[in-house]
Amino acid sequence: MTSPLRIGIAGLGTVGSGVARLLAANAAPIAARAGRRIELRAVLERYRSRARGLKLGRAKWHRDPREFAADPNIDVVVELIGGAGGIALDLVKAALAAGKHVVTANKAMLAHHGNDLALRASRSRRALAFEAAVAGGIPILKALREGLAANKVERVYGILNGTCNYILTQMRDTGRDFGDVLKEAQKLGYAERDPRFDIDGVDTAHKLALLAAVAYGGAVDFKSIHVEGIRHVSALDIEFARELGYEIKLLGVARLTPHGLEQRVHPCMVPRSAPIAHVEGVFNAVVVEGDFVGRVMLEGRGAGSAPTASAVVADLMDIAAGRVAPGLRVPAARFKPAPMARHAGAYYLRLMVVDRPGVIAAIAASLRDQKVSMAQMIQRGRSPDKTVPVVITTHETEESSMRRALDAIARLKTVREKPRLIRVEAL
Amino acid sequence: MTSPLRIGIAGLGTVGSGVARLLAANAAPIAARAGRRIELRAVLERYRSRARGLKLGRAKWHRDPREFAADPNIDVVVELIGGAGGIALDLVKAALAAGKHVVTANKAMLAHHGNDLALRASRSRRALAFEAAVAGGIPILKALREGLAANKVERVYGILNGTCNYILTQMRDTGRDFGDVLKEAQKLGYAERDPRFDIDGVDTAHKLALLAAVAYGGAVDFKSIHVEGIRHVSALDIEFARELGYEIKLLGVARLTPHGLEQRVHPCMVPRSAPIAHVEGVFNAVVVEGDFVGRVMLEGRGAGSAPTASAVVADLMDIAAGRVAPGLRVPAARFKPAPMARHAGAYYLRLMVVDRPGVIAAIAASLRDQKVSMAQMIQRGRSPDKTVPVVITTHETEESSMRRALDAIARLKTVREKPRLIRVEAL
Repeated sequence: MTSPLRIGIAGLGTVGSGVARLLAANAAPIAARAGRRIELRAVLERYRSRARGLKLGRAKWHRDPREFAADPNIDVVVELIGGAGGIALDLVKAALAAGKHVVTANKAMLAHHGNDLALRASRSRRALAFEAAVAGGIPILKALREGLAANKVERVYGILNGTCNYILTQMRDTGRDFGDVLKEAQKLGYAERDPRFDIDGVDTAHKLALLAAVAYGGAVDFKSIHVEGIRHVSALDIEFARELGYEIKLLGVARLTPHGLEQRVHPCMVPRSAPIAHVEGVFNAVVVEGDFVGRVMLEGRGAGSAPTASAVVADLMDIAAGRVAPGLRVPAARFKPAPMARHAGAYYLRLMVVDRPGVIAAIAASLRDQKVSMAQMIQRGRSPDKTVPVVITTHETEESSMRRALDAIARLKTVREKPRLIRVEAL
Repeated sequence: MTSPLRIGIAGLGTVGSGVARLLAANAAPIAARAGRRIELRAVLERYRSRARGLKLGRAKWHRDPREFAADPNIDVVVELIGGAGGIALDLVKAALAAGKHVVTANKAMLAHHGNDLALRASRSRRALAFEAAVAGGIPILKALREGLAANKVERVYGILNGTCNYILTQMRDTGRDFGDVLKEAQKLGYAERDPRFDIDGVDTAHKLALLAAVAYGGAVDFKSIHVEGIRHVSALDIEFARELGYEIKLLGVARLTPHGLEQRVHPCMVPRSAPIAHVEGVFNAVVVEGDFVGRVMLEGRGAGSAPTASAVVADLMDIAAGRVAPGLRVPAARFKPAPMARHAGAYYLRLMVVDRPGVIAAIAASLRDQKVSMAQMIQRGRSPDKTVPVVITTHETEESSMRRALDAIARLKTVREKPRLIRVEAL
């Protein structure tokens, strides 16, 4: 057996401690499969207390990121500090400059600086691996880069944030409203005290940017992503979704269209016949539609100490075995971002209207004026002169037409609340 | 760009023609991702007519397997002839001896001769790659060998035969019986004219043997697999399954137990809350339970020209890129096969009994005598002195106890048909 691969872990938080535990627990099978031992030789961490319960062996304890990045006794820097910039970014740059491979789970950093870092890695001929950054333990990036690499990707989409999927699943199962379920999720530790990053779709967008870059061989283009979160999904919408045969999921979707690369994050109505409709709770899933393979779905845990560690160590094993493929293509293909106004799809609209003759006719006219074709309409019960929900689904139309129709509808006097729109994803 | 990888395809049937089509259709992205062009330089095929519609370019047409295997203008032999022995086996041996890499989709050959072929490949330092042999387009072997390689596999199981899954799905959706649905599947081309290979579980067992070998790093041990097919699953059982919250799926399951490596293929009751319960029609799925990653499921098309070609070409791209990991470990770990009698699990029993006082008591006594604990009992309706179905589910027990109880039950005079047993898989 050849010499061991010597690694340094930066950050002994949830993921870092998981990696240390995994390397210790499965050292023998890992060495057998990778052809070399993987040894933890250095740690970068401010708090000594975080070493508690971990077998860190002879690993050198660093407090200075620069010294850590230059430590001659490590071949790979495993960056698990997090954050889009700051220490993490400086560390990764320094590590690549010092000729180290880098493995990271940091989607925020890669979403913002992935292109620059990929270029640096390519120049110093080192790996920049980040399987753990997208969908945690699910080996989706490897699947896209290698297992499904013979295909042209027609669309790639996924449930990429466990917090949102947990909240939506709970809302459906309990009939309770968003705020309520969010509070409970926070108590249970499934949502952060400041949950905006998750529930407003930013975390999903970070991951989608990476997923799309790997699937299409393009540059990471986080800024072009259309992002909507799940705040406005109501218990009422979930109820109607069920009635219409849908589940509501927060999806990140990327596809090449005649208008360019479409990247979007928003709540979707997905038909219950689609496999992704059955991905429940904190689980993540990614679906790849390839021109030859057809639809492939990978489902698993998208976060947590042990699953994320599984992905980090898989990257380390690839490096140990000499399988160093570029995570991001350099030079990357350039795609024009497709404007969201040109998105083509079906829509679900929920309106709160006064129950009065002629209301539906006015709404229907607003849709017709924009050439939006109605597929279904539901008005449940009768409550003359009270506010009642009306739900409309449309056939495929362009987002810009839908938006114009919606503006017209919102101006109708009989429409009493801001209309709610949820896109229907054809699956 | 370096020199192209030169390949020869043996057999232009469903899969072989798919590979030729895929290599032509996606030549540019394949070359970009693999770092080299993959060129079809030779074909082994008896029937010229099979070239129709294919762009075979300058590929040399061979009719003699020995000449083909020795063709100095190819680096890789892609064996897509099929069959456990015969020409396919001779060809693969000759190709490895001639220093060619081998890519194959031939599960029957590998289930019977995989260990020998892996040894030959290892000795000549060539790849023996077979992603397409298990679950078609789903990149499950790569996931096990690389993406999930940091884990100890606790259990791996899957729906590995689309014909069986199609039949079971149709039976459930239409309420029709096995023979009926099989006939229709044959008409539609979803089942072979001689369907035994599929419906008796042999094809699933071939794939399971490979899946288990890759997951555990062991030798291929096809002969130790306990195999039951789906012939005896009745519409009545599917109806009861639904009532009990289960779907019936033909699974291949492998796990390490204190008694050795358990490998079994049989119809299973799977709880509807499990993701694999929602894998419908001709789709395949494999679930890996790893000690760190938890449960990961991969779902996709398990057969067909284009999906299988996707997997074959992925193997070719790995070889082109120099990622030549052994598909089967050499030397392989040796596991004692766990006897099916020691299998521990829950059971579903369906009995056709005379509706008469005391019948259930006698059955319950037979179970009690073997210390089998009942979980549920369903006897629907009343038809005094007529034959009615009684369904019993048990708590976890050992297969040998269950078998003894079943023998006793079968001997009861009030039990009018052979009792039906379906294992309940804890998921």
